Amino acid sequence: MQRTYNFNAGPSALPLEVLEKAQKEFINYNETGMSVMELSHRSNEFEGILLNAQQNLRELLDIPENYEILFLQGGASLQFSMIPMNFLAADQTAGYVLTGSWSEKALKEAKKMGKTAVIATTDENKYRSIPKQNEIILPKDTLSYLHITSNNTIFGTQWHQYPELDGIDLIADMSSDILSKKIDVSKFSMIYAGAQKNLGPSGVTLVILKKELLDRIPDQLPTMLDYRTHVKSNSLYNTPPTFGIYMLSLVLEWVKTQGGLEGIEQKNHEKAALIYNQMDAYPDFYRPHAEKESRSLMNITFTLPSEELTQEFLSQAKEAGFVGLNGHRSIGGCRASAYNAVPLEACQALAHFMETFRKRFL
Amino acid sequence: MQRTYNFNAGPSALPLEVLEKAQKEFINYNETGMSVMELSHRSNEFEGILLNAQQNLRELLDIPENYEILFLQGGASLQFSMIPMNFLAADQTAGYVLTGSWSEKALKEAKKMGKTAVIATTDENKYRSIPKQNEIILPKDTLSYLHITSNNTIFGTQWHQYPELDGIDLIADMSSDILSKKIDVSKFSMIYAGAQKNLGPSGVTLVILKKELLDRIPDQLPTMLDYRTHVKSNSLYNTPPTFGIYMLSLVLEWVKTQGGLEGIEQKNHEKAALIYNQMDAYPDFYRPHAEKESRSLMNITFTLPSEELTQEFLSQAKEAGFVGLNGHRSIGGCRASAYNAVPLEACQALAHFMETFRKRFL
Ligand SMILES: Cc1ncc(COP(=O)(O)O)c(C=O)c1O
Ligand SMILES: Cc1ncc(COP(=O)(O)O)c(C=O)c1O
Ligand SMILES: [Mg+2]
Ligand SMILES: [Mg+2]
Ligand SMILES: [Mg+2]
Ligand SMILES: [Mg+2]
Repeated sequence: MQRTYNFNAGPSALPLEVLEKAQKEFINYNETGMSVMELSHRSNEFEGILLNAQQNLRELLDIPENYEILFLQGGASLQFSMIPMNFLAADQTAGYVLTGSWSEKALKEAKKMGKTAVIATTDENKYRSIPKQNEIILPKDTLSYLHITSNNTIFGTQWHQYPELDGIDLIADMSSDILSKKIDVSKFSMIYAGAQKNLGPSGVTLVILKKELLDRIPDQLPTMLDYRTHVKSNSLYNTPPTFGIYMLSLVLEWVKTQGGLEGIEQKNHEKAALIYNQMDAYPDFYRPHAEKESRSLMNITFTLPSEELTQEFLSQAKEAGFVGLNGHRSIGGCRASAYNAVPLEACQALAHFMETFRKRFL
Repeated sequence: MQRTYNFNAGPSALPLEVLEKAQKEFINYNETGMSVMELSHRSNEFEGILLNAQQNLRELLDIPENYEILFLQGGASLQFSMIPMNFLAADQTAGYVLTGSWSEKALKEAKKMGKTAVIATTDENKYRSIPKQNEIILPKDTLSYLHITSNNTIFGTQWHQYPELDGIDLIADMSSDILSKKIDVSKFSMIYAGAQKNLGPSGVTLVILKKELLDRIPDQLPTMLDYRTHVKSNSLYNTPPTFGIYMLSLVLEWVKTQGGLEGIEQKNHEKAALIYNQMDAYPDFYRPHAEKESRSLMNITFTLPSEELTQEFLSQAKEAGFVGLNGHRSIGGCRASAYNAVPLEACQALAHFMETFRKRFL
């Protein structure tokens, strides 16, 4: 069978080895005579899967002991609301850095809950870049937290150096670049991510949360929206998305076989370079949206000289078997999402296609 | 391979045919060269799956046109909070009928949001029964809605006749008996259910909602917690649990092959009778928790004459290959959950085991 060249922005490609393993044990997990989906979430087998996933995340991301690892539902979008509900006190202001549509959405939800401030934004240059450290000017009065989007899935930009804050809790939406490279978790008070790019299938939301933050949560929140609920029950307060967590656990095992985050990061550089090189060689033909120093390794965005040519490129790419190259419906253009599980060969094939296509015009 | 006799209370057994089909196309769905998990939620393929699931639900449950069908995340537990957030206005009172632990939890969340009233409860008889129609006395002032739990997973009771209300919106948590029999959807303003019993794997929450109710939703709710968000985007506001919805769609196809809800209901009666007959023949040995007229076809609860004997029964049943017969950790005892996908043979085997076990003592 021919695997498709899958450049979907999420849900996106999964490692073939992971899919094969899951397929093999789909009906009979570990000689239980049951599918993982049929296991009780309170069974030893499922608890083993959950603990294994947490343990591997802790290892891979080097997550310190004073951080909780939670698997929730609702996607990153529900986190946009849970964060201010839990951490934005009435007398405080939550700070947001705007680097794209997802940061805007996060801000919009926070505004419903309390006072907010836009600490920096690159919207005036169409979100082509990430603010520089000296553009992040923190107000004198306390911020309850500063929120950033580490990778901007739609615009194709990525933070390569996180803001240095002094005593202010940094919260990052890492939906589209978690596990793509090494990070220093201790610089963040919270990291969250929908699973459907680098972690597994959709339906699981990863939250990595510094324990100290739990003390700030007000009483009387809806039980399911209070992080303490999920900490106390180790993500088993109610029925979790068991199969999604299982798939995530397999993806983590796979990441370990790839040389961990160092191996993954190196491969991601190699993959993205193949495509960026095409753009850099003919920047008037493949016009990058992101400024060079803010480029994302995950989502590579560009347009062609005319809307007609962009459409022609997309339709021929589709014919040639490439999936998911359309830019987000809100901005159009082209976007290649080269997440961890997208193989080098897919990027080679795309680079080759770009070259061939370009030669017909230039 | 020997399939386990799976009596789990949820997540629970899935039809073998469904698992086999999903396994077969796990890596290459419909010749796309991708797993269902790798499809964009905005692709034609996934949209087809979603629409098919909605269409089959509408057909099977005969859902009128003026009802929306939503697939959400967060489980029934998040609905406990979303319902009062959306439908309990400041000047109103929400009514709850208490028939077990899940109704209590639903009430607890509503109390955080506004005024509530317990309209009837059977807690004084340890939730062995469902209130009778004449025990449901509605207050003169308007209730914003009346909430019931149609099947009490933990105590093993089930509503066999729903309350007749006059102009008050009836909302039912049908997590553990949805699709187990025919119902008249038009008597309800809202029905919801976690998928992990009769519908599919955990991680999907089904909501069936009368359109009229949407007008009552206040502004400024968190976007993800406002039902209108999901209605407007047909459950695609953010990334849904795509694989769970796909599995659910396969389960619905399977239900159709079983003679629809009529066929399913008949088989459920047959299956439950096998086990209840054992209890009725020796009610001092297999002591039913539920009163006869309130018995659940889904969750069959009983204890043995002593705690020692109960434990002996459970441990020998486990040895014999029966899974999930322990009662809920909150009340102990035994519970056999015979959801739609539990085959007749599993119930026959359990009845046989109960008989053999009993004969050693009686
Ligand atoms: C950076 C980022 N944040 C948030 C979201 C929304 O995630 P979800 O669909 O899980 O709510 C996305 C989705 O693509 C994203 O890329
Ligand atoms: C009747 C009923 N309501 C609610 C729930 C909670 O569902 P969830 O785990 O999906 O939140 C359950 C779980 O077993 C249930 O049986
Ligand atoms: Mg963006
Ligand atoms: Mg813990
Ligand atoms: Mg109950
Ligand atoms: Mg609709």
